[in-house]
Parts: sequence; C-alpha cells; structure tokens
Amino acid sequence: MSNWSKIMECVPNFSEGRDLEKIEKIAGAFRAKEGVKLLDYSSDRDHNRSVITVVGEPQALKASVLEAIGLAVELIDLTAHSGQHPRMGAVDVVPFIPIRGCTMEEAVALSKEVAEEAARRYNLPVFLYEKSASAPHHENLANVRKGEFEGLAEKVKLADWTPDYGPAQCHPTAGGVAIGARMPLVAYNINLGTDNLAVADSIARKIRFVGGGLRYCKAMGVELKERGIVQVSINMTDYTRTALYRAFELVRIEARRYGVPVVGSEIIGLVPMEALIDTAAYYLGLEDFTINQVLESRIME
Amino acid sequence: MSNWSKIMECVPNFSEGRDLEKIEKIAGAFRAKEGVKLLDYSSDRDHNRSVITVVGEPQALKASVLEAIGLAVELIDLTAHSGQHPRMGAVDVVPFIPIRGCTMEEAVALSKEVAEEAARRYNLPVFLYEKSASAPHHENLANVRKGEFEGLAEKVKLADWTPDYGPAQCHPTAGGVAIGARMPLVAYNINLGTDNLAVADSIARKIRFVGGGLRYCKAMGVELKERGIVQVSINMTDYTRTALYRAFELVRIEARRYGVPVVGSEIIGLVPMEALIDTAAYYLGLEDFTINQVLESRIME
Repeated sequence: MSNWSKIMECVPNFSEGRDLEKIEKIAGAFRAKEGVKLLDYSSDRDHNRSVITVVGEPQALKASVLEAIGLAVELIDLTAHSGQHPRMGAVDVVPFIPIRGCTMEEAVALSKEVAEEAARRYNLPVFLYEKSASAPHHENLANVRKGEFEGLAEKVKLADWTPDYGPAQCHPTAGGVAIGARMPLVAYNINLGTDNLAVADSIARKIRFVGGGLRYCKAMGVELKERGIVQVSINMTDYTRTALYRAFELVRIEARRYGVPVVGSEIIGLVPMEALIDTAAYYLGLEDFTINQVLESRIME
Repeated sequence: MSNWSKIMECVPNFSEGRDLEKIEKIAGAFRAKEGVKLLDYSSDRDHNRSVITVVGEPQALKASVLEAIGLAVELIDLTAHSGQHPRMGAVDVVPFIPIRGCTMEEAVALSKEVAEEAARRYNLPVFLYEKSASAPHHENLANVRKGEFEGLAEKVKLADWTPDYGPAQCHPTAGGVAIGARMPLVAYNINLGTDNLAVADSIARKIRFVGGGLRYCKAMGVELKERGIVQVSINMTDYTRTALYRAFELVRIEARRYGVPVVGSEIIGLVPMEALIDTAAYYLGLEDFTINQVLESRIME
C-alpha cells in the first residue's frame, strides 16, 4: 500500500445499523478494489447507524465511495427509519481526511468531486461542510443536519440552505447528504473516579472550545453506569493543534477542584500514530525529535 | 511496501567512516532493489565506522546484504584501519531484526542463511551472536569482538571460538564478522541538569541490568561538554519488555537523591512506533488500547 503516493481516508456514515446484510452489501464497495483498503466498520443498533473507515488513493477511493453511496440510496429507506442518532440521509455524512502525502486542499477538492458526481448520479441534494463548506454557517455538521430527514424538504427551500449540488429537494427515501473534508478526529474519553455526572459535565464545559477551553476540543459528560463512574467524552477535532495530552492534563487540573481523581482514559476507534507519539514526546521531554525517526513512518514513505 | 507480507530490518556496521565514496558503493547494494528499502545511513569519522539501516522482504534483504558484505570485503582493508570504536572486521556486525509479520525465529533462520553464504562466498570466519548464538558465551557482541581484528588470528584457534561458519582463520584484510538476530534496539539518552559526570555515571550503574537495574537496559554516563550537562546514555535492548517510560521514570527517581533535575531526553536514530505508543498509553492511563487502533498500523497490515 505504500506504493500509494497519497493516502486519503474516508469515514462515511450510513443510516442503517440493524440490517447487517445491507451494511455488508454497502461495505462490499470497498472490498477487493485496487487502491482501496477497508480498515473498519461498526454498526450500532440503538443509533441505527453504521460507520465505515476506509483508506485509499484519492481517485480509487472516489470511485468506491460513489459506488457505496449508490448502494445506500438503493437499500436504505429513511421514511421507515428510527434511531437515537440525528440523521438527514441514507448516506448521512461523508468526510474525507488527508492522511499521508496529500494536503487538506486536495481533500477539499476530492470531496467536491464526489459531491458533484453523487448529486448527478443519484439525484441527491448535497451540502458541503467543514473545510469544504461554501459558507460559514454550513461548516458545522450539526447546523447542516438540523431538522433532519423529516425537515429537509422544507429546509432546502430556504435561501441559506440551497444545496451545493443536486436538486433543491429532498430525495424521497434517501434524504440529503453532507460531504466535506476535515482533519482526523480522535474520540478520546477521560474517566473520573466518581459517579457524579455533574462533575464530568462541569469539567467538559470548561475544557471545550465553546466554554472557553481548548480550541480543537468538543466535550460532554457521560455516565458509565456499569462501572459506576463518569467520563469526560471528548472529540479532538485537530490533534495537530490541540494535543491529546493537553486535554488530559487540563481535565486532571479541573478535577482537582472536586477532589476527584482521573482513573484512566480511552481512545475509541482509530487514532493517527502522530497523536500518540506527540504525547510520548511531551511526557519524556524528547528534544529534537521528529516523526521521521519513527521506523514505520520511514517504511511508509 | 506493505504488499510485503514480512518486513525484516538489518543494520550492518562497516569499518569505514571516512572514505564516503566507499560507503556510497556499499550502500548501493541496497538501492533500487525490488523488496528492499534503504532507510538511513550515517558515518562517524572518529569511530571510522558507518551504520546502514535497511528494511526488506527477507529473501530480497538477504541478497542485498550479501552483496554489501562482498563490496565491503573488497573495499575495506582493516590492516590500515584505526578508529575509536572496537571492530573485528570490515563488516563488523550484521544484526537482523523482525519488524512486522515475522518472528524472531525467522530472523534467526535468516541470519544463519546469510552467515553460511557469506562465509562460503567471501571466505570469512563468521560468528553467530545474540539470539542466533550457538553457545551462551557467544551471545554478547562485546565478547565475540574482544581482541578485535588484531587478535582474531589467534582467537579463532581457541576451542571456544571456532567460527560457526567459514575457515578457522582471520581473513587477511577483512577480519571476521558477527551475524545474528536481535530485538530492535532503541538508543535513548536522558539529560540531567548538572555538569557532574559522576552523577550520570552513578545513575547509569543503578538503572542498568548489570547493576541490578532493568532487565533490558544498558547505560553509561556521558558528558555533553558543549551544553555543560551530563546524560545517562541508554541502550534499550528490548522495549517490549522494558518500556522506555520505565527507564525515564527510574532515572528521575534516582536523580532525586542528588537534587538533580531531568531536563529532557532524546532518541538517537530510528525507533519503532510501538515503543512510543506504549509510552503515551502509560502516561494517559489508556484502558484497553491496542496497537491495532493506530491508523498507520492498520494501513501497513
């Protein structure tokens, strides 16, 4: 795979988490394809949603993603869909992430190619979001998705919400889709030695961007009922700017106010090597260290 | 390169660090070869020695390493060699290190194939060392090399030091060579906020294996004259058993006795990703984390 000169990642989210046969068919778009590698996929019954993680050469990835979107439009009917997770489309959101040998600008360009082609082929309204957004109020996925599938038919008629590609109308069964480019996202949770959810909530509010905390950090308090503890559940939206260890140490500092210990942390799903190596370099006080000193980084060059 | 199902590393040491034209010729054995990738090479004038780091598929690597040994035997004349580093051969030592998809047993087997073939082709006495050693007193490279080139003609006549392959006589210009398999070695130095070498020496003696310290840790005190500080210079000989952070924290603990702060640390050369990710996992208290969650690890699978 490292004869691939560029590696792009894509993490499409599909609004089906119960009928695994359908998910298998969609995931098939990423199997046995030259220049594409399926890394992971997981389905959640409660959310009724599946997330696929795939990497590939940009053009090969584009072809497979378009095929998967087509399969999802064909197989998933949102008029009969219910689940805990907000969604506006059969293919709900399709982020492209530059991993190696390619820039954010290339990810943006690829996302627009896929958006244009998906709209044309499948008659879908497509919104560009995050780094690909055509307007600031389209950047945040929560804004784009607000109103969900049920509200989309009305939303696309608003001047502010004309789709970037495709018709200004909701696809009858597949809704609409958000496509864009973003940094790798690290799902990082920090566990506290208390069962008091208010403590986790309060710390989350302080460390996250909207509360005056770290720039690339979203956070909320979550209860882990089985373990009898709570956690600060974090999305690190740009670990190259807001390091993992900074969130960890900041939670520890804030937890002191409540006399509550940090008992551990966890990474959900995949994490880029650099996020953890940066953390090791901080704690060891490494001088003059570069990612090029990592053997695997050299092998992948 | 990740269409390579097995990745083996080799770090041959050559007794020439001044005539860079010769080194270029030897390094040429690893260039533009299918299944082989030259990662790094560095030469030291004072040591009069060069170290090449290369990875490859086992059989392709074997062919290139044998070619490099042949070039070194042809180009390097030890009868005219002087340098600070102990050496017994033009090709002094050839370690094989299993990196991915292969076991230590396979590295041992490969080292023996190379040893047998190098002895046959170039009429060299070859000693197996480390994990490949044929007797316990051959494991430690320092033992094998003791007496150096100048003493080798006599040494090979001793019953205890019959070469594993090749003639029981010193090659007139190229001496002999040690070939074997070992774990990846991490050169890791910890800097202290003092100019007192005795402090670094004393800490080194306590943390290293021979002094009652960590099992896979060799250490000595070193003066960094330009910076006016000292360091504990460490070779971590198996980071999978003796973690980097353990050495770091132990040096910090021992330094307290002298009221000396640890001011930083440094990694020399290449380090496997896992050594640093393990360190990050320790400091963040990561729960249930596996190396398979690292994106690059999955890409290389």
